[in-house]
Amino acid sequence: MTQQALREAVVRANQEIVSAGLVLLTWGNASAVDRNSGLMAIKPSGVDYNDLTPGQIPLVRISDGAVAEGELKPSSDTETHLVLYRSFPNVGAVVHTHSHYAVCFAQAEEPIPCLGTTHADHFLTDIPVTRRLRPEEIEGAYENDTGVVIAELFSDGGYDAEPTPGALVAQHGPFAWGPDLRHAVENAIVLEEVARMAYHTCQIAPGVERADRTLVERHFFRKHGAGAYYGQQ
Amino acid sequence: MTQQALREAVVRANQEIVSAGLVLLTWGNASAVDRNSGLMAIKPSGVDYNDLTPGQIPLVRISDGAVAEGELKPSSDTETHLVLYRSFPNVGAVVHTHSHYAVCFAQAEEPIPCLGTTHADHFLTDIPVTRRLRPEEIEGAYENDTGVVIAELFSDGGYDAEPTPGALVAQHGPFAWGPDLRHAVENAIVLEEVARMAYHTCQIAPGVERADRTLVERHFFRKHGAGAYYGQQ
Amino acid sequence: MTQQALREAVVRANQEIVSAGLVLLTWGNASAVDRNSGLMAIKPSGVDYNDLTPGQIPLVRISDGAVAEGELKPSSDTETHLVLYRSFPNVGAVVHTHSHYAVCFAQAEEPIPCLGTTHADHFLTDIPVTRRLRPEEIEGAYENDTGVVIAELFSDGGYDAEPTPGALVAQHGPFAWGPDLRHAVENAIVLEEVARMAYHTCQIAPGVERADRTLVERHFFRKHGAGAYYGQQ
Amino acid sequence: MTQQALREAVVRANQEIVSAGLVLLTWGNASAVDRNSGLMAIKPSGVDYNDLTPGQIPLVRISDGAVAEGELKPSSDTETHLVLYRSFPNVGAVVHTHSHYAVCFAQAEEPIPCLGTTHADHFLTDIPVTRRLRPEEIEGAYENDTGVVIAELFSDGGYDAEPTPGALVAQHGPFAWGPDLRHAVENAIVLEEVARMAYHTCQIAPGVERADRTLVERHFFRKHGAGAYYGQQ
Repeated sequence: MTQQALREAVVRANQEIVSAGLVLLTWGNASAVDRNSGLMAIKPSGVDYNDLTPGQIPLVRISDGAVAEGELKPSSDTETHLVLYRSFPNVGAVVHTHSHYAVCFAQAEEPIPCLGTTHADHFLTDIPVTRRLRPEEIEGAYENDTGVVIAELFSDGGYDAEPTPGALVAQHGPFAWGPDLRHAVENAIVLEEVARMAYHTCQIAPGVERADRTLVERHFFRKHGAGAYYGQQ
Repeated sequence: MTQQALREAVVRANQEIVSAGLVLLTWGNASAVDRNSGLMAIKPSGVDYNDLTPGQIPLVRISDGAVAEGELKPSSDTETHLVLYRSFPNVGAVVHTHSHYAVCFAQAEEPIPCLGTTHADHFLTDIPVTRRLRPEEIEGAYENDTGVVIAELFSDGGYDAEPTPGALVAQHGPFAWGPDLRHAVENAIVLEEVARMAYHTCQIAPGVERADRTLVERHFFRKHGAGAYYGQQ
Repeated sequence: MTQQALREAVVRANQEIVSAGLVLLTWGNASAVDRNSGLMAIKPSGVDYNDLTPGQIPLVRISDGAVAEGELKPSSDTETHLVLYRSFPNVGAVVHTHSHYAVCFAQAEEPIPCLGTTHADHFLTDIPVTRRLRPEEIEGAYENDTGVVIAELFSDGGYDAEPTPGALVAQHGPFAWGPDLRHAVENAIVLEEVARMAYHTCQIAPGVERADRTLVERHFFRKHGAGAYYGQQ
Repeated sequence: MTQQALREAVVRANQEIVSAGLVLLTWGNASAVDRNSGLMAIKPSGVDYNDLTPGQIPLVRISDGAVAEGELKPSSDTETHLVLYRSFPNVGAVVHTHSHYAVCFAQAEEPIPCLGTTHADHFLTDIPVTRRLRPEEIEGAYENDTGVVIAELFSDGGYDAEPTPGALVAQHGPFAWGPDLRHAVENAIVLEEVARMAYHTCQIAPGVERADRTLVERHFFRKHGAGAYYGQQ
């Protein structure tokens, strides 16, 4: 993908998360990387989604966070995105929002439990929530360390970023990702809807059981991996 | 109805369940049958609703599930639809969605209780929830057996598919049906709204009683059957 | 108002309750009366709101319920509307819907409590809920007796239909009214929103107190009656 | 800003609070002041938002509440706005709505707790709720005293109107403000969304802790004050 195509795709993805109802005001950003050039394209900070043009999209070096191209300042969440790209080599795009129900689980510091096939079609496990950042992390390299606590869930916490393409940052909100922008945006949409479903299910039946493991795996692998048979080939 | 008319009606019904707010992404499918030719027309798997054309709608033989016409793969839920048509001889159309509140009751494994006249105008009883599928069913003929557990509710569970035109699959979501697509789509819409009404009613008044049986029957039979007097003749 | 103007206003009001989000499918109807001619104009039964034309609106005699003009059958709720017009001489229009939160309170058989100034700006009291109809009422003159149980709240229950322009029928849903269609539609909209506000308030604070009586009266009489000072003269 | 520009901005802000979903019927009003001329421009009482023109916007003297220009009666909440401008010298615009979840917290007489970074990006503290007005205040200078109980929170209650640009009036609803209309409208939107987030978070986790103080301050001061680094310069 050329840099121009990458920037255009990032503009579209940032507008899609708004039209999908995941973003109020300027509370969200999507990015994508070109692994060959080592560059990330990301939304500029505080710019209105409707006004975004490809030329405004900053290109940032994944290795050190320097702006390689573009005159606008990249999103204040840039360092978080970079940590995710460095930690998850197969991830090509990242979406951060303050989508409503996902934020509520993040504020409650509860994972989004896997309660049915809607969840299992896209996420093989609960969607985990990070530990809180420590005061010295908050006062120091805050945005970088927000990425670090997400990455810890996957390096130390037993999760795998491919079948679990999203996480909640405690007292903050959701990040979702995928191999490309289409999947990252879709995972952000699904993460919000399964959070909303889990919310209302737990209100009907407090302490409801997780969905049967066999059912979860059947649904996930019906759509993902070598044995997938969902959709057209 | 010609095959062309059947396919056009199936395209429209699949678009109506989206515009009625029952479907996010590609989480839903509508089908209809022509009993004379023994064929079912159903949404192709994973295709966007806006792009659907009648020529893309596969025709599947009810008897053995073989694709009689069409180049696209039918919905991954095809086998479930077929079991319903084989089990319910008066059903002409089936709608499956992951509509929000219906999924929440399915995940909670609770029937949708009949609490008032809105429900009783369309469903004469609670909307039942299936048993869970057994591991060997999930790992085996999963989509077929999803239809089987629905059909069991009606063959063994005391329900009748005509006055109860819908059911919830445990840990999954709702199926609705009717004599034709118009009624099947309407029943899917009503099923979701009465689930949402039951949700909020039970939050106001946990343990609320079912609506009086006399009232339920008055409303149902005001709209259905020989003594109906709702609408124009 | 001429009969033509009355029918046109009834068409508009029936469309307004749809666009205000109070009506799904055909679950709602608005009527208005001309006290001089003794006629009520009401939505015909089961007709789609978009297709309604003034010429389709039946005119029904208030005295005996006979259709004086029009070829379509009036709403199945016609007898209920008639009882309200006979019982409340200052009421010029009636709106019945199955609006979501109002139905939930009706199904829970709880009045909508007056918890703040939003409610008090339009309703001086709680919005009451009827007793259940008795089996012989349900099996007999059901629609007539639905009006009777509403009227009982006002004749025997201590309510006055002018400062309390609405009620909930147990296990069914809301009716609202007013001196004319504009006020009746507005009261139906407010009834639904204050039901929704009461719902969420009671979830935050179970057992919350009613709003102070002094505050309620100040707000109601700021908008209604001889001392009103809201709006332009 | 000329008086004409001020009135145009007030028209736009009144329409924005409607399109943002904060206002049903005529339940909301926005105002702005020109400190040089000592005048406030405010929505006229009971006028439909779509019909508003700059020429209809009354100009009211902050010092004594007299209408300096305009033929329409100003909003019935005019006196409340005036008290806020007199009490908070850096406030340039005020927005009052009956937005749904904010009203519910006001009816429950609970502050909106600061549970995460969405809240902390705009409000440094909980959003406080006033004491109830006393009967003699309600029956006397009611609208003036509604402003007084808000101002008391800031003069006596330990809050500062700049980092806490909003409050809830008990049994009534929210007021928000800011240095100009853009910020006041934005704060009204955020106040509603963080109320809705707090509602659902507390349903998931009753008694949830406030967000860590270090995190709250990091987010607030990332966007506000001398060290802000959010957005383009």
